[in-house]
Amino acid sequence: MQPKQNILHLPVYQPGKPISEVKRELGLTDVIKLASNENPFGCSPKAKEAIVSLLDQVSIYPDGGAVDLTHAVAEHYGVKPNQIIFGAGSDEVILMIARAFLTPNDETISAFPTFPQYKHNAEIEGATFIEVPVDENGKHDLKAMLAKVNERTKIVWICNPNNPTGTMLSEREIVSFIESVPNHVMVVLDEAYAEYTVNEEYPDSISLLNKYKNIVVLRTFSKIYGLASLRIGFGIGHPDVVRSINQVREPFNTTSFAQKAGLAALQDHEFIRTCREANAAGIRQVTAELDKLGLPYFEAHGNFIMIDVKRPGQAVFQGLLQRGIIVRHDPGWGYPTKIRVTVGSEEQNRKFLEALEQVLSEVAVS
Amino acid sequence: MQPKQNILHLPVYQPGKPISEVKRELGLTDVIKLASNENPFGCSPKAKEAIVSLLDQVSIYPDGGAVDLTHAVAEHYGVKPNQIIFGAGSDEVILMIARAFLTPNDETISAFPTFPQYKHNAEIEGATFIEVPVDENGKHDLKAMLAKVNERTKIVWICNPNNPTGTMLSEREIVSFIESVPNHVMVVLDEAYAEYTVNEEYPDSISLLNKYKNIVVLRTFSKIYGLASLRIGFGIGHPDVVRSINQVREPFNTTSFAQKAGLAALQDHEFIRTCREANAAGIRQVTAELDKLGLPYFEAHGNFIMIDVKRPGQAVFQGLLQRGIIVRHDPGWGYPTKIRVTVGSEEQNRKFLEALEQVLSEVAVS
Repeated sequence: MQPKQNILHLPVYQPGKPISEVKRELGLTDVIKLASNENPFGCSPKAKEAIVSLLDQVSIYPDGGAVDLTHAVAEHYGVKPNQIIFGAGSDEVILMIARAFLTPNDETISAFPTFPQYKHNAEIEGATFIEVPVDENGKHDLKAMLAKVNERTKIVWICNPNNPTGTMLSEREIVSFIESVPNHVMVVLDEAYAEYTVNEEYPDSISLLNKYKNIVVLRTFSKIYGLASLRIGFGIGHPDVVRSINQVREPFNTTSFAQKAGLAALQDHEFIRTCREANAAGIRQVTAELDKLGLPYFEAHGNFIMIDVKRPGQAVFQGLLQRGIIVRHDPGWGYPTKIRVTVGSEEQNRKFLEALEQVLSEVAVS
Repeated sequence: MQPKQNILHLPVYQPGKPISEVKRELGLTDVIKLASNENPFGCSPKAKEAIVSLLDQVSIYPDGGAVDLTHAVAEHYGVKPNQIIFGAGSDEVILMIARAFLTPNDETISAFPTFPQYKHNAEIEGATFIEVPVDENGKHDLKAMLAKVNERTKIVWICNPNNPTGTMLSEREIVSFIESVPNHVMVVLDEAYAEYTVNEEYPDSISLLNKYKNIVVLRTFSKIYGLASLRIGFGIGHPDVVRSINQVREPFNTTSFAQKAGLAALQDHEFIRTCREANAAGIRQVTAELDKLGLPYFEAHGNFIMIDVKRPGQAVFQGLLQRGIIVRHDPGWGYPTKIRVTVGSEEQNRKFLEALEQVLSEVAVS
């Protein structure tokens, strides 16, 4: 019963503490979670109505082809239904791309730090994973990434805006990169935070699909659409590529609830507009205070900000946790003095900033 | 952008028609679906309450470790939490087992016909898949399967009761098989329909886990628990095996709704008891009529019956469809004159039997 050799080193997921347990342990009644880039405004009320409307169909299998949602997304983006594939979060689309395309003979490239599921899935497939450090501003170093491309390169993963740094690549930069890589290389543009971007230079990647067969765009309902609990995301690409991904898809990989809530959420344009504007205002609110505190941060184009607290990030994380604010510090990022905080509601941001100021006065500068 | 060579031949999922479209096309107002072995009595009302209770947390990621449900299932079965792994349906547990264990050097064995996801996932991993025909009664031919085991065999998949034949293997047969295979072979006991079995000889596989490290038991909330739309199932095995499977699990592979509804469904023992009894009565209702009609059928231990209609199965399927009854006929089973029908409510069974009798008079005997 030997598992695959190439998975033996992979970490086993360690479940985090439920908020209820954090509250109990710390004696807190109110905890604000700004750790997972969730939408602080919840989801569209129409999505909740969609969930309730399915209560008499809980025992029925989902539509394996997600036909209604596929057509709605196709119309929304002006693409054909056979260009779309759904997963249980874009996580599962990443899994399926890796499972359909990567072999132990292949190389695959991403930035570092970035979303960890590219590496996780590439390693399960036994592919060689090459990580290219982001630059000092937290941006993808596309030139250095391009230099790593060779005849064995199968996929380049570009997270834009990049998680966890929050930085953005422009359409000009993306196009220049795509034009420079050989046709045998798939470029996956993971745009989980696309709807939050307000910068005009952000790429219109869907339109690029008409010109470049070798790109796959990933989107999710977990972020601005506020459906993280339901696990649904999707990829958009050339029909041939989507067909290959479909060959490894489980027949019923997304729930009926996710499909129907996604359909409702997609159509509530007003909710999305409001969340986008509140997020932009929240970034201004937080960064204005960070400027006053003299704390550097990366340009934030998603719904989170990577902040250099100039002190051990783990200590600042703990200090915030004691005050009921959960943010993220990951030693694996290679940023010992940085924390990532999700942009919350105005009140949540204020409470975070107040707590941060207190913690900064208690933790010695590194 | 070459996909893996070993997935090129895999079929692409063809979405079935939604019931609404079937109704429109056939001019029917009432359609009964007895095609997917869903619970005709829905799910526990407590599961629906659990879904509603989560409406203010749609935007929050699920508990990646499914801690509450893990503990409830562990207690329910008398195993340790580290022996349990959840998937989006037991489909995903099958995927994870294949992804963690199977390599192109391995062989893996199942009955034929059986649940198709074992083969699908084995082929994606490039393993050699060996199918051993069931006997003339639709039962696993364990002797012939054992004869195929060799030093390259990594996994044997046993679906019990077997889908689509509905037949059962006894504890004696299962134990004898496990004792005969070498330790390096994992035996996966897929017991999706276990809760429907009323035969005393059905194995208590969970208790076998104490004795045999090399078995993994699969269970699901999609069948008697009536949560098919929510996609949740689980595997129970030795902690070392579960650890390896966990290494390839996506961090958020099941939804909050599935976890919470599963917890509620697990605790509604009365609902399960009622469904089990109604199903046993439904099997008696249908088979008594089949006996009158002179139609043979396999011993049915799940919530479905494989019937030899002695006529082309596809024609009988179509005839039933015209009358608003959807059953299953799959040419891939190798049973040209058989259909599989889910046991429904008493009324659904009656309507199915009435329609069947009409169709039999119209379709010529093969």
